Amino acid sequence: MRAIIKASPGLGLEMRQVPEPDVGPDEVLIQVKATSICGTDLHIYDWDPWAARHLQPPLIVGHELCGIVVERGAAVTEPGIGQLVSVESHVVCDRCRFCRTGYGHLCENTQILGVHRDGAYAEYVAVPAVNAWPDPPGMAYSIASLQENFGNAVHTASVPTVAGRKVLVTGCGPVGVMAIATARALGARAVYATDIRPYRLALAKQLGADHVINAATEDVMAAVLDATENEGVDVLLEMSGATAAIEQGFRLLKPGGQAALLGLTSGPINFDLDDHVIFKGATVHGIVGRRLWTDWYQMRGLLRSGAVDLAPLVTHRFALDDFEKAFALMKSGECGKVVMFPDPDDADGPLS
Amino acid sequence: MRAIIKASPGLGLEMRQVPEPDVGPDEVLIQVKATSICGTDLHIYDWDPWAARHLQPPLIVGHELCGIVVERGAAVTEPGIGQLVSVESHVVCDRCRFCRTGYGHLCENTQILGVHRDGAYAEYVAVPAVNAWPDPPGMAYSIASLQENFGNAVHTASVPTVAGRKVLVTGCGPVGVMAIATARALGARAVYATDIRPYRLALAKQLGADHVINAATEDVMAAVLDATENEGVDVLLEMSGATAAIEQGFRLLKPGGQAALLGLTSGPINFDLDDHVIFKGATVHGIVGRRLWTDWYQMRGLLRSGAVDLAPLVTHRFALDDFEKAFALMKSGECGKVVMFPDPDDADGPLS
Amino acid sequence: MRAIIKASPGLGLEMRQVPEPDVGPDEVLIQVKATSICGTDLHIYDWDPWAARHLQPPLIVGHELCGIVVERGAAVTEPGIGQLVSVESHVVCDRCRFCRTGYGHLCENTQILGVHRDGAYAEYVAVPAVNAWPDPPGMAYSIASLQENFGNAVHTASVPTVAGRKVLVTGCGPVGVMAIATARALGARAVYATDIRPYRLALAKQLGADHVINAATEDVMAAVLDATENEGVDVLLEMSGATAAIEQGFRLLKPGGQAALLGLTSGPINFDLDDHVIFKGATVHGIVGRRLWTDWYQMRGLLRSGAVDLAPLVTHRFALDDFEKAFALMKSGECGKVVMFPDPDDADGPLS
Amino acid sequence: MRAIIKASPGLGLEMRQVPEPDVGPDEVLIQVKATSICGTDLHIYDWDPWAARHLQPPLIVGHELCGIVVERGAAVTEPGIGQLVSVESHVVCDRCRFCRTGYGHLCENTQILGVHRDGAYAEYVAVPAVNAWPDPPGMAYSIASLQENFGNAVHTASVPTVAGRKVLVTGCGPVGVMAIATARALGARAVYATDIRPYRLALAKQLGADHVINAATEDVMAAVLDATENEGVDVLLEMSGATAAIEQGFRLLKPGGQAALLGLTSGPINFDLDDHVIFKGATVHGIVGRRLWTDWYQMRGLLRSGAVDLAPLVTHRFALDDFEKAFALMKSGECGKVVMFPDPDDADGPLS
Repeated sequence: MRAIIKASPGLGLEMRQVPEPDVGPDEVLIQVKATSICGTDLHIYDWDPWAARHLQPPLIVGHELCGIVVERGAAVTEPGIGQLVSVESHVVCDRCRFCRTGYGHLCENTQILGVHRDGAYAEYVAVPAVNAWPDPPGMAYSIASLQENFGNAVHTASVPTVAGRKVLVTGCGPVGVMAIATARALGARAVYATDIRPYRLALAKQLGADHVINAATEDVMAAVLDATENEGVDVLLEMSGATAAIEQGFRLLKPGGQAALLGLTSGPINFDLDDHVIFKGATVHGIVGRRLWTDWYQMRGLLRSGAVDLAPLVTHRFALDDFEKAFALMKSGECGKVVMFPDPDDADGPLS
Repeated sequence: MRAIIKASPGLGLEMRQVPEPDVGPDEVLIQVKATSICGTDLHIYDWDPWAARHLQPPLIVGHELCGIVVERGAAVTEPGIGQLVSVESHVVCDRCRFCRTGYGHLCENTQILGVHRDGAYAEYVAVPAVNAWPDPPGMAYSIASLQENFGNAVHTASVPTVAGRKVLVTGCGPVGVMAIATARALGARAVYATDIRPYRLALAKQLGADHVINAATEDVMAAVLDATENEGVDVLLEMSGATAAIEQGFRLLKPGGQAALLGLTSGPINFDLDDHVIFKGATVHGIVGRRLWTDWYQMRGLLRSGAVDLAPLVTHRFALDDFEKAFALMKSGECGKVVMFPDPDDADGPLS
Repeated sequence: MRAIIKASPGLGLEMRQVPEPDVGPDEVLIQVKATSICGTDLHIYDWDPWAARHLQPPLIVGHELCGIVVERGAAVTEPGIGQLVSVESHVVCDRCRFCRTGYGHLCENTQILGVHRDGAYAEYVAVPAVNAWPDPPGMAYSIASLQENFGNAVHTASVPTVAGRKVLVTGCGPVGVMAIATARALGARAVYATDIRPYRLALAKQLGADHVINAATEDVMAAVLDATENEGVDVLLEMSGATAAIEQGFRLLKPGGQAALLGLTSGPINFDLDDHVIFKGATVHGIVGRRLWTDWYQMRGLLRSGAVDLAPLVTHRFALDDFEKAFALMKSGECGKVVMFPDPDDADGPLS
Repeated sequence: MRAIIKASPGLGLEMRQVPEPDVGPDEVLIQVKATSICGTDLHIYDWDPWAARHLQPPLIVGHELCGIVVERGAAVTEPGIGQLVSVESHVVCDRCRFCRTGYGHLCENTQILGVHRDGAYAEYVAVPAVNAWPDPPGMAYSIASLQENFGNAVHTASVPTVAGRKVLVTGCGPVGVMAIATARALGARAVYATDIRPYRLALAKQLGADHVINAATEDVMAAVLDATENEGVDVLLEMSGATAAIEQGFRLLKPGGQAALLGLTSGPINFDLDDHVIFKGATVHGIVGRRLWTDWYQMRGLLRSGAVDLAPLVTHRFALDDFEKAFALMKSGECGKVVMFPDPDDADGPLS
């Protein structure tokens, strides 16, 4: 089959012919219908220090996908053959203390698709049956693919209480934009959003931000204080990992407020625990992965009820064969979610 | 009356004769029976940048005290004349959004005794009647005085759930030691404590730490991992403000753990939000002051029931006239809580 | 001034000329602009056992109102003369353990307007300044009056988590309908509502219920199970106090669900703790009054942002002189909220 | 092998020779070392309506046990052969929404040992490997056996916050007594306990109750109010299912208090939601089973640290062959926990 692999340490990815994956007794084989690009995949492409530390080439990369179950291991009873599934990319052990106490997203033995085991940029992928989440009939492939990433947004927006509160989202990449849509659906009173790219701020607006602020050209502090009668916000959802955004976000957080942090800073930063956390009596939540499987049920409900519509976020579609173009676009930042299709006929919209 | 004042910007304090305070209609006049020294008072003595920013000399300093109500303003109905009271040092406005929604400890108009208004190192002090907390008959003056400071410890140990959990306390100054005693009383499964002074580690042990570790001479990481079967702790109570202790504390915090931060760092530090908060899915709570008045009720219960005994923490007593000696001892760190008595005959133990 | 009083034990109310109220030092005098009728007022009119137990005639009744501050006691600094205010009807002591720990709605010394002290059905009423909640300029008098009652709904819908959840509201009296609007504004995924009056079900629909069910003519169990794929609901908001509704509500509550109970049953009922609470692992919250002042801030936000629009709920307006007609209508149940105006010129809509 | 079975509908149990159980691919075969009697087993013996509704004879009964793993199904990797294990008696599906979101104790497909599938009163029992909880080396068989039941107590005492609070435990059967010990270990400020048997009140006292009250001979209301300065308790743990105890418990619960209900009432009772829940602003938690596996980890910690010592609760030991004597004693109520040993040589104390 065709697959995009990191063949060896270093820059870039390549498409190769590789054998179809073996299917373990608890696994299903999925024919990939759509697979989307995550920021992590850019790090892998670029072979940054994080990638060098975590990946062992050769490896098929990619971890966001949907597809059709075409084969099942001997011990698998569900999902059924022919079922459309999305995939939870974190393969957890189900045995450690975290898995056994409702903290599977913190499993100490997590294997991530496309990072620790062969991933989704391929015609087929094998995953544990439990990781294959049945989708409702008729769900668009592009939406089904990005659910894994949507789950990060749902997790972030669900840990603090946003209902009836004023929320600041710093960083309007795809996860940030989905966090905006989620916060809005979960009853946020107002959602303010910052980024430095007009393209993404426009998406943020489209998916539900009340007020978007270009941090490169506008005074974020003044804009949010002005919009909140100088009170600041009740909740900060930090999706950027950018030091300046973190600093602004915490300065704008009200005393007694809650911050949920998802954006990675890639190393220590200068951070004022006194002013940002202690004197404020703030609560800060670290967010990683998706709560298994609470966030998946929440996602299903948000999408099925129409409370969140992710369609406008899928701005570009490519044939998997054109992955180089897709990655180049992702790097430019002039896009929302970019989805690739191993079979171009599966594309649920015009290809770029 | 005699009072210790910061007469003008700069190092040191001095005792002077000053007029007795006026008593407003909602205030009570308290004859000070005991007044204890807080770390903040050292900063004021030394006139560090924080003190320079917040104090406007001349001012009577000191904010931990107990005493007898000797006069009441016209509108005051309780506490009664002759009542022994401890004092909440934060005078809050009762009008702002924080005060009106149970977050009085975050009041935006807080005036602190001995910082923003005349304080406790004096024969008499006037405070709003609502700030005068009636003590049970027979409570030792030294214990009554340090309740205000005990409240910081109770607040810190109450925000995360310590019952049934393994707890690390970094920093065994008086508040740290009281947090140890509180965590123990609230059902902590095990309490580990770090500091760099043997004197304070001995106090920590005496007030309930299971295991004390000298961070200056021992390998804190190894010691705590060894004591916890390499799992680390469920809860971190950070009471030191020391960068190294913060770093160790967060590294020893389990995924999914809770950290409560009270110790001030006096400015930004290098902090790894990725490793310490995000990847761990940790929750971090900033702690300031005492929850009004939840923590005072909690304190009363802990002391009355005997669940916490603070007597061993009061290691030194001085006449208020000997404040220079008391401050010098505090600076040495070779002490627990240091209590001063305007009238040496009120001392509830031998004077140093 | 004119006032509606319960002159003596027994049925009915009467309008009389009475002296204007005295204004205590901490009180304000309010010229009543609008005053609305609560279910409690019907009990008082009818002099049911509850009323007989709690009221000591003669007394001016009524507890929902808004008006203009026209006089202030000596110790009052806010709100200002001329300010439009709504009134929190529970006068609490600010001294008991509940008041001092954020549970003012459970104050053990609560005095309720129109129950324990003179109330709102009058040209003027005196209340503690702290009970007078400043309204934004331009708020309609009828909306300002019913905020007190809206607070019950906000309290009920805020204690369980409704965001992203399926919610059943049993009972579509005014508070039930306002709870529907609040649940919707706070992000409820779906809101099902039951009552036995078509008039009120129509109001429920208008204020945001997805699905209304007439318990007198439809099979509530079947309807809700059908709408929820046989799962039942995550949250029950019980606003009726009717035994049958309580029974249905709990049967429809999912295992692990949350119920908030506001409707009063007026005495013990036959209740199956095993099936309704224990085997389900349910959590049941008793709701009384409004959390002081959290719920008032929440109300202000919901109204100002337009997330909740209560205008359609105000179905009838009367001159206060026509209170007998207003009460007769309330008893019929063929109405939403009924508002009375001491000065008919103040009516913000056509009088009935 | 020998096993105690309910051979057919009706009173009583009998010991029979039956085949050893088959072991499925995900199961382990356990040689039973100790098996204890639960109140539920008495209902099964007596064939009460609940038993008649749930059991399909013939069936091996009993669900509390420990033993040694002696055989493993093909798919089992842990626990190892020879390992001492306790057993979680609820066999859950791991597939339903409850299992997949941390609510396994509410699994809609639960099969209970000795109720829905063959149980523990036998020489051998087969259970899913995941239900076999490895015990630390050297744990006494009697303690290991009763952990399953201890889990109910830990669950009940962990859901409300008991740390620093005053707690009333109504019902001092074995689970009630273990709840007392747990509440004490988790930092309860004071524990009051009621029952009608002096034997059990003595056990309650021994395991940590501060104050025991015989509801048959003493005035429970007066005793608890007296002990709490007329305030009542913060937390009610209802372990009796007795109407009078429930009534007393709720009357003694403070406004704003929390109740956790475990005791079953076997049908609807007369219950005053107004006074007991609504006017009090109380929170009521239904408790069923053990949270999988949070409560097992909590148990392990409580036992290993010595915070809870259950040894005094094991008051009687019998050979399994003497089960009739054991059941007769249980019915008398003049006992704590009664443990039976298939091989009398395994008894960890003198046999009765």
